[in-house]
Amino acid sequence: MTERLTQQFDFLLEIDKAKRIQRQTYCSDGETLENDAEHGWHAALMAILLSEYANEPIDVLKTVTMLLIHDIVEIDAGDTYAYDDAGVATQAQREEAAAQRIYSILPEDQGRKMLELWQEFERGESAEACFAKVLDKVQPIMLNAATDGRAWQEHEVKLSKILQRNEKTPKGSPVLWEYMLQQFIMPNVEKGRIEKDC
Amino acid sequence: MTERLTQQFDFLLEIDKAKRIQRQTYCSDGETLENDAEHGWHAALMAILLSEYANEPIDVLKTVTMLLIHDIVEIDAGDTYAYDDAGVATQAQREEAAAQRIYSILPEDQGRKMLELWQEFERGESAEACFAKVLDKVQPIMLNAATDGRAWQEHEVKLSKILQRNEKTPKGSPVLWEYMLQQFIMPNVEKGRIEKDC
Repeated sequence: MTERLTQQFDFLLEIDKAKRIQRQTYCSDGETLENDAEHGWHAALMAILLSEYANEPIDVLKTVTMLLIHDIVEIDAGDTYAYDDAGVATQAQREEAAAQRIYSILPEDQGRKMLELWQEFERGESAEACFAKVLDKVQPIMLNAATDGRAWQEHEVKLSKILQRNEKTPKGSPVLWEYMLQQFIMPNVEKGRIEKDC
Repeated sequence: MTERLTQQFDFLLEIDKAKRIQRQTYCSDGETLENDAEHGWHAALMAILLSEYANEPIDVLKTVTMLLIHDIVEIDAGDTYAYDDAGVATQAQREEAAAQRIYSILPEDQGRKMLELWQEFERGESAEACFAKVLDKVQPIMLNAATDGRAWQEHEVKLSKILQRNEKTPKGSPVLWEYMLQQFIMPNVEKGRIEKDC
């Protein structure tokens, strides 16, 4: 049992590095860039509090687990900004290699399960993956809106890009998509913080 | 439905402040103090990966939820260091007032549920609360051990205090308590990073 526990704690210590992986989203103070651990915590709580809006019945624990682990691959692969086309092109390959290394630190049964869960999230097909992907998108959009669109302005983000990136979001939750479109995105288009190109 | 969603997003934005509440634990880089959101993320993943060691069968989602929310009260009440006796004396009262304010931002049904879950965690009596409290303790102890006991040394922490603070830990998980005692605590007593006063 000690060997199993040691593998589990080795993994738990390794993933501490996610706290140093910076994202491109400002926290609500408008000054500090969020990191992957903070984003995972926030999105997981969203899954618990907003599960009633999932398009299909979901296993909440499974969705929460997906969200808590979904960015761990960035320990090796780095954060790829959603609107960085060059980075996005090589993202899948870099992240798959990272997942293989990091999850293999766990005992074999748990490592396999976590790897499969991450891959399920990436495919975005199951009810849980669909809903987790909605929350992975709404969390930074909520923060961007709360910080006067600072991250959108710095990266000169266009409305067409946001709509393209959220093409599947209504599939996971039409209610949340409508809310974030009306409350977070369009008011910032009107204020010129997101470029209206469509 | 929009009113309900607005209350939920108001809460989700308010709790973003937990990312700025600094704890007294160093992350694995040995330099950066951890914050409450990072700690919640880490402890929630521990609940998922270590649930097999709970002394009684637990509802994992309930335990994870407890851990994700347990420090939100510190947005108002601040972080009270475990070995700060003066702070600990007024902690319960400050945190109860904080919980009443912050959870009331949510729709009434959810706010009541989250408040009750936090109170259940604080009482530490249910199987889930017992196990959540084990993880709330083992997470910083793992990090302290991984950073050559820096936080223990800076606060001149004594072995008797650690043992006293972990009096109930074996009740939640004798296996995890034995592991953390042998692997994380005693090696640091031997190296003089924790004062051996008993």
